[in-house]
Amino acid sequence: MISVVKVTTRASTTPSPEPTRATAPATKPATKKAAPRTAAPKKTASRREALAQEPTSHHVPVVVDHPAPRPAPHVTIGRIPVVEVSPVVEGGRWPAKATVGEVVPVEATVFREGHDAVSATAVLVDPSGAVHSTAPMQDIAPGLDRFQGFVQPDAEGDWTLRVEAWGDPYTTWAHDATVKFEAGIDEDLMLAEGVLLFERITAPEAQSARSAEDAAILAGAAGVLADTTRLPAARLAVATTAAVRDALTRSPLRELVSPSADYPLRVHRRRALYGSWYEIFPRSEGATQAPDGTWTSGTFATAAQRLPAIAGMGFDVVYLTPIHPIGTQFRKGRNNTLDAQPGDPGSPYAIGAAEGGHDAIHPDLGTEDDFRAFVAAAAANDLEVALDLALQCSPDHPWVTTHPEWFKTRADGSIAYAENPPKKYQDIYPLYFDNDPVGLREAILGVVEHWIALGVTLFRVDNPHTKPLDFWEWLLAQVHAEHPEVIFLSEAFTKPTMMATLARIGFHQSYTYFTWRNEKDEILEYLQEVSGPGGSVMRPSFWPTTHDILPPYLQHGGVGGFAVRAVLAATGSPTWGVYSGYELVENVPRPGVEEQIDNEKYEFKPRAWENADDIGISLLLGRLNEIRREHPALQQLRNLTVHGADNGQILAYSRRIRAEHLPLASGSPDVSGGSDDVVLVVVNLDPWGTQESTLHLNLAELGLTPPPGTDGSAPFFVAHDLLTGEQYSWGAHPFVRLDPRRQVAHVLQVRPA
Amino acid sequence: MISVVKVTTRASTTPSPEPTRATAPATKPATKKAAPRTAAPKKTASRREALAQEPTSHHVPVVVDHPAPRPAPHVTIGRIPVVEVSPVVEGGRWPAKATVGEVVPVEATVFREGHDAVSATAVLVDPSGAVHSTAPMQDIAPGLDRFQGFVQPDAEGDWTLRVEAWGDPYTTWAHDATVKFEAGIDEDLMLAEGVLLFERITAPEAQSARSAEDAAILAGAAGVLADTTRLPAARLAVATTAAVRDALTRSPLRELVSPSADYPLRVHRRRALYGSWYEIFPRSEGATQAPDGTWTSGTFATAAQRLPAIAGMGFDVVYLTPIHPIGTQFRKGRNNTLDAQPGDPGSPYAIGAAEGGHDAIHPDLGTEDDFRAFVAAAAANDLEVALDLALQCSPDHPWVTTHPEWFKTRADGSIAYAENPPKKYQDIYPLYFDNDPVGLREAILGVVEHWIALGVTLFRVDNPHTKPLDFWEWLLAQVHAEHPEVIFLSEAFTKPTMMATLARIGFHQSYTYFTWRNEKDEILEYLQEVSGPGGSVMRPSFWPTTHDILPPYLQHGGVGGFAVRAVLAATGSPTWGVYSGYELVENVPRPGVEEQIDNEKYEFKPRAWENADDIGISLLLGRLNEIRREHPALQQLRNLTVHGADNGQILAYSRRIRAEHLPLASGSPDVSGGSDDVVLVVVNLDPWGTQESTLHLNLAELGLTPPPGTDGSAPFFVAHDLLTGEQYSWGAHPFVRLDPRRQVAHVLQVRPA
Repeated sequence: MISVVKVTTRASTTPSPEPTRATAPATKPATKKAAPRTAAPKKTASRREALAQEPTSHHVPVVVDHPAPRPAPHVTIGRIPVVEVSPVVEGGRWPAKATVGEVVPVEATVFREGHDAVSATAVLVDPSGAVHSTAPMQDIAPGLDRFQGFVQPDAEGDWTLRVEAWGDPYTTWAHDATVKFEAGIDEDLMLAEGVLLFERITAPEAQSARSAEDAAILAGAAGVLADTTRLPAARLAVATTAAVRDALTRSPLRELVSPSADYPLRVHRRRALYGSWYEIFPRSEGATQAPDGTWTSGTFATAAQRLPAIAGMGFDVVYLTPIHPIGTQFRKGRNNTLDAQPGDPGSPYAIGAAEGGHDAIHPDLGTEDDFRAFVAAAAANDLEVALDLALQCSPDHPWVTTHPEWFKTRADGSIAYAENPPKKYQDIYPLYFDNDPVGLREAILGVVEHWIALGVTLFRVDNPHTKPLDFWEWLLAQVHAEHPEVIFLSEAFTKPTMMATLARIGFHQSYTYFTWRNEKDEILEYLQEVSGPGGSVMRPSFWPTTHDILPPYLQHGGVGGFAVRAVLAATGSPTWGVYSGYELVENVPRPGVEEQIDNEKYEFKPRAWENADDIGISLLLGRLNEIRREHPALQQLRNLTVHGADNGQILAYSRRIRAEHLPLASGSPDVSGGSDDVVLVVVNLDPWGTQESTLHLNLAELGLTPPPGTDGSAPFFVAHDLLTGEQYSWGAHPFVRLDPRRQVAHVLQVRPA
Repeated sequence: MISVVKVTTRASTTPSPEPTRATAPATKPATKKAAPRTAAPKKTASRREALAQEPTSHHVPVVVDHPAPRPAPHVTIGRIPVVEVSPVVEGGRWPAKATVGEVVPVEATVFREGHDAVSATAVLVDPSGAVHSTAPMQDIAPGLDRFQGFVQPDAEGDWTLRVEAWGDPYTTWAHDATVKFEAGIDEDLMLAEGVLLFERITAPEAQSARSAEDAAILAGAAGVLADTTRLPAARLAVATTAAVRDALTRSPLRELVSPSADYPLRVHRRRALYGSWYEIFPRSEGATQAPDGTWTSGTFATAAQRLPAIAGMGFDVVYLTPIHPIGTQFRKGRNNTLDAQPGDPGSPYAIGAAEGGHDAIHPDLGTEDDFRAFVAAAAANDLEVALDLALQCSPDHPWVTTHPEWFKTRADGSIAYAENPPKKYQDIYPLYFDNDPVGLREAILGVVEHWIALGVTLFRVDNPHTKPLDFWEWLLAQVHAEHPEVIFLSEAFTKPTMMATLARIGFHQSYTYFTWRNEKDEILEYLQEVSGPGGSVMRPSFWPTTHDILPPYLQHGGVGGFAVRAVLAATGSPTWGVYSGYELVENVPRPGVEEQIDNEKYEFKPRAWENADDIGISLLLGRLNEIRREHPALQQLRNLTVHGADNGQILAYSRRIRAEHLPLASGSPDVSGGSDDVVLVVVNLDPWGTQESTLHLNLAELGLTPPPGTDGSAPFFVAHDLLTGEQYSWGAHPFVRLDPRRQVAHVLQVRPA
């Protein structure tokens, strides 16, 4: 009933995370080492030539051979059960994600039979298989037996994590002995059992693993406990002091240690989690219009002149919309019209013309050397270059003639253009992956490798959800194996399962629903969702606008609205991005759609940057990025707490990183000074009116302890506004007032006074 | 730091679901075949003797060696992604459960790139590895891409299930062609593509898999579609009729078929899901008191006289509290007092005396032959016998002297009794599994096999959550391998994770929180929870009371309250149970505790059964069991729907099984007659007052379709009260009135008029 052609598979010469790698038979084994930069285009060409000689079958759906999927092998329950470990994706089918220095909450459900005490340890194993570190876990939901601890990998690679559950004989004994002493029963017996227990606690191999101070505390306690000349109550007391308990929390006596499975954790470089992106159409930067109305395109050289200003606002990544030759057949005119006028430059997403396809550069922008010079200029400004990867072709793309098998041919012999019936997009030919998936995969890998060789380190992938996911998983695995530094951002504005699964199979980051979350409750709910366990798989990138999206809130919110959304994006997610022109509050939509009028996709759009500072948004962007850089708490994802605010237009949330995690998180060994880094954000969502509110702060999650004998309501800590420099003396329920004409938000560093 | 002794492992001679089976070195290989009945005690004894010769280490916690647990191997995403399959336990670590004839909802998240249509098939694979059946899946949550279908295994054993996701070219084409015809574009092209598509649809191997009728419908449509002499609209119309769509739902054209992993599904016999239990203390049945106050115990022979009455009320299982010799040291007296009086029989849970331990019979009850006769008498009444498995010992248990290493020895050399400090239970010595886990495991397996050999087919396990879970997993696997018919009911009234994990690792059934769910919302929420995906792992057994539990609702609810809880238990769960005396509305608590006064655990309690019919509860129990037997919908678990009721004291829910599943579900090939079996339950929770309410029925989930042109509000179906015989003509919003003095509930069969 099903017509499929199985493609011959051959073993890869390269280790790959996939069990089987399907590739086309080639005239020679494909070398998978990074090619020298000058060789890359040639390599792509030869790959294409080799593929062109292969017979292909048209119109027959193909499935790529893959092994029969099997579930996890049966593993018996441990002596001390540990189940439901997080972060784990589909039982370990795909790795969870982290970055160097990221603090990853590890959770598991741990319990045991009977009444004895139980505890757990999170164990982080480095790529070599050695235990890197262990972290104590606390029961954060006692009735539900849910334990949590924090690990922090310090290098890239394929790590694993597991949870060890164990019996805690000290806590069991201390509880029972204390209760029995209170009841006046079994005192001698409990002391005798305590003596035996402390012999195990202070055994030489246990003591040698402790600090000298802890070892001394425990040895001292053991001595007093064993001293039968003392009063029983005194012997018990010395064995149950806070100092003894703390020493045993740091280095416990564990018995019946029962490990969970080892679960994969892939660690990327820091930029995969934390960074500020700035999007440009390079042709607009420096484009000029002659008196007769004709345009001269901007170039890589003129666009490079904008880089210092982008860097000056604190951005880390400059993202370029497609830079390839643009088709002329069915070219779109200004404002997405079907009748392009002479001189209209066309959409850069209609990729491919006589001058070349996805590995070529639009002649108006310059040459490969000019592109290299742009990448170098960016690097000189501490900017990385992200390129758009839009896997679609104009009717003029070279592949249309050289590889018609990479497109769908219709019954009348024509190549299928894009459609969403009855709508037609005749300027776009989608790639079709089911005729010759192996040849097409290799060609696209060649394109990606071409740009990597030219210095591109990030790809913003256009509409990945319109291409097969098995293709993406393969492509991302290939690139990761050779270029683990390269980061892919998924532009999949679509249903949640697709977005999540693109992340599962390897995308480093994803655009999100943030752009459409405008009300207080929906913003807070979404912030908590992206910062929860799912954040160890799908890393969010928050964008207030894109070249495709001008949401209603920003159409109507004026300068205040642009400021509100910038603060939310820059503090709500460690990665955020801004589309150029945001500084100028470009907020006029094309009627009837949620995108800008005179969309830059279809025309040149040079901007009067000299006006930006007057509006103030550019200064805000710069200050936000500066705060992000100075506060590692804002460079982390899974550390968010929402706080109460009585006013429905005012929301508050904080991000905190503990002192012990700061050196590695910041990459600076001497950064913490012993204090947690805590940033509290308070935003007025009303861009037009002053709003005021009493806040209700979760002090514990801010790392704050009320002064002894108080409930924390009276002022006892300092909130330092990083946007204005003002300082406030606050308690648990401060009053705030935000006038959007002056200040839409507090971004506060919180410190004990 | 951790003192552990690794126990030597050896390969088992028996295939086992565990990767490694740890057993004690024995003088000869343990034979794992079912021993002849008479040989079983000897086998147990020799096993014990062999173990007694083994050296054991005291006071050193031991972990049993087990392989390093590994997560699921990496499996690439399929061409058409399928993730989040249900029912699956921890990625397939343990099997989901089903019974012969059970209808199992299979769910998965299925989606694909772009706009083309996608669908899925649930595939059920029998223990031999052959595909048993396939079931179409429907998208039940379109925005979330959640698909559902139903499979129904027809034999015991270790089955697997998987979900195949696939592209649906017919639905894609039919949608696009219809839209384009409406827009008046591409008509000829869409017809031409349709002709090619129908060539694939009607290919010989596809047609041969269809019914003759379906094949003819599709061949006819293909012919008309290809007939260019006809009008285009007519050609399209004939290819998109309901008949064509239905034929292609039954036997679709699937492409890019992408399987999920194969996930384990363990299928037990029907009694593991569906049955009615009746609990007795056999010593009470026929116990007599002399004029001087001294008691003579009931026996197996006198208890057997009660079996016809139990069977007459429709019960399937008679469950016996422990039947072993009872200790005398620290024996508890009446009402749990510490000073037993002469003649007090003691708690049967204080197991073990000079006469023997867990494999012995209390001399007052009879001999092994008498027990065999009781089992035979039960079988003659179509009753199975369940035995209590209470793994704890009185101080007089033989193991205390023969195997002190199976108990915990305290620092003063005494054996530890049960404690929950400061409370002491000196009549009970808990078993301690960490000194000699292998020896103790084998001894307990011997006990279980002993009773199986004597005819016991079910065990009610007392407090399993106070014993190590790795022990239970091992024991249940051993018993399952040789006696797959034997069912274990977990009495773990404890935290949810423990209860769920006992189910995961092999318990067939579990007591539940039902006993404490009294309010409408909490009852309905709990019914939905136990009937959801978790129901394919933890099968509920609903008990209104037990010998340990007399909940407040029943202390105060009178006869009506007992009736309400019986109806809820009997229809809320396919397995339910009643503790003897329920018929007599025994509802007086011992002051201050939620259990009966004069608890049967500590005294003989013969009952005046001749009064039971006057009260009416025994008649209700019999009728409920009769209705359960006649209605396969009530024998299923995962088929519950909650309906609306305006009154907070009235709740309504239904269970439904579709006609096509009825023959296998009931075990009777000719049972369905083409109609679904649907039972709607409406209960008045107020045991003292009449309550009335308008109901708001979910007609679709009742299998009802309103008459054409109506919204279903007017009466159009028949609700037949199976308790009273009354019939009602109802629409979607019927009015009910329930007077608890007459009738606490409707149990209605629902049928189209």
